[in-house]
Amino acid sequence: MKNIKLVIEYDGTAYCGWQYQPNGPSIQQIMEDAVFRLTGEHTRLHGSGRTDAGVHALGQTANFHTESKIPPAVFGRALNQLLPGDISIISSCRVADEFHSRFDARGKHYRYLIFNRQERSPFFENRAYRYGKEIDLSKMKAAALHFKGTHDFLGFMASGSDIEDTTRIIYGIDIGKDGDLIGIDITGSGFLYNMVRIISGTLLECGIGRREPSEIPDIILSGDRKAAGRTLPAHGLYLVRVIYD
Amino acid sequence: MKNIKLVIEYDGTAYCGWQYQPNGPSIQQIMEDAVFRLTGEHTRLHGSGRTDAGVHALGQTANFHTESKIPPAVFGRALNQLLPGDISIISSCRVADEFHSRFDARGKHYRYLIFNRQERSPFFENRAYRYGKEIDLSKMKAAALHFKGTHDFLGFMASGSDIEDTTRIIYGIDIGKDGDLIGIDITGSGFLYNMVRIISGTLLECGIGRREPSEIPDIILSGDRKAAGRTLPAHGLYLVRVIYD
Repeated sequence: MKNIKLVIEYDGTAYCGWQYQPNGPSIQQIMEDAVFRLTGEHTRLHGSGRTDAGVHALGQTANFHTESKIPPAVFGRALNQLLPGDISIISSCRVADEFHSRFDARGKHYRYLIFNRQERSPFFENRAYRYGKEIDLSKMKAAALHFKGTHDFLGFMASGSDIEDTTRIIYGIDIGKDGDLIGIDITGSGFLYNMVRIISGTLLECGIGRREPSEIPDIILSGDRKAAGRTLPAHGLYLVRVIYD
Repeated sequence: MKNIKLVIEYDGTAYCGWQYQPNGPSIQQIMEDAVFRLTGEHTRLHGSGRTDAGVHALGQTANFHTESKIPPAVFGRALNQLLPGDISIISSCRVADEFHSRFDARGKHYRYLIFNRQERSPFFENRAYRYGKEIDLSKMKAAALHFKGTHDFLGFMASGSDIEDTTRIIYGIDIGKDGDLIGIDITGSGFLYNMVRIISGTLLECGIGRREPSEIPDIILSGDRKAAGRTLPAHGLYLVRVIYD
């Protein structure tokens, strides 16, 4: 029995998210089907975590156990032959039997993309959140600095979640611009439900003058979801990388 | 009668190209239909030039004459309501009655994108030419320098074309890399049929060691299509901008 780790890129537009859902195809299901067609084995694919409907991944990570004699490094390419064009395995390798994509994750890197133009783009419509008005990048950058470090992010979690420990560490948060695209890159120990999308919404509100960067520390301290900014839509969010030891 | 200039972005994947073709929908046709639905007028849309099936545009330019009372700057947004998601008008404005998108063009800026990774990407599969093996960017850059300036590009034109004057000026040619994407940006006075795709193919062959950059001047001088590199596929090509006085 081998334990195979996959790194997966996907466009989440057509899916109900990573995990099984009754209301539509999930990436997990499509991939388990592909593993079955390739190996004849019904196996469970363990992802590093869920991504919501419409959320994309450049480096989702998952593992599964198999008796197959296919060389581990070849699994990715073989599965790509069976997967639809909006899901692609970038790499596959054998890992220790006890490795688990979710439990062994030490952190994650997410990116939120804002397409800062009034007119829609054929290239980014489902792949970035379009916002047409002027954005002051320096204000977003100033606001971002306040998120770095260890904080209780209770106010940056979708209401209704019932997680006990809402403290997380943000290792880095960078704002960059390339043409009309603004990218918010956040790396952290872990993220609460909708946390990246709420932080991004709060940063955007600073960028358009609806809030001041200096308000951020008090918003974090308040632990009040209503004090933070709005949740930006799923289709601007990318899981870039899962960090392991 | 007003003359309206449009700047248009499109994903060419689903189209037989800019211009009317018997074998499928063209961008020109879809847009003329949209103008008709908006204004009730059957008008001819003059593009700056054709783009082939699968070729994309970030800034194709076209103009048309209309009696409509819709303010020129509003035309773009109004047409976007009627256009499919893979075509978007970025701007619209009134221009002089005698302005013609093709005859008044002074130059064009094209980009060719190479996706330098073995595994396909859900985000770039129809939007960049995928090439998985190692590419030496410095060799591509060295080769690119030889294309700058005024040359007879007869050898860099699709065979079968029957244009008399095959001399063109390349104002600039830049090679850049961003992650797995390599971009070849070429600005020139005008381009022969398939010229950007043949130059890109020749540069790529230098990047992978199949040719030496120092061979380029002789290849250009030869005027021999067979001496130049292969024509890279249409789906990596973007018309970035049309230059006017």
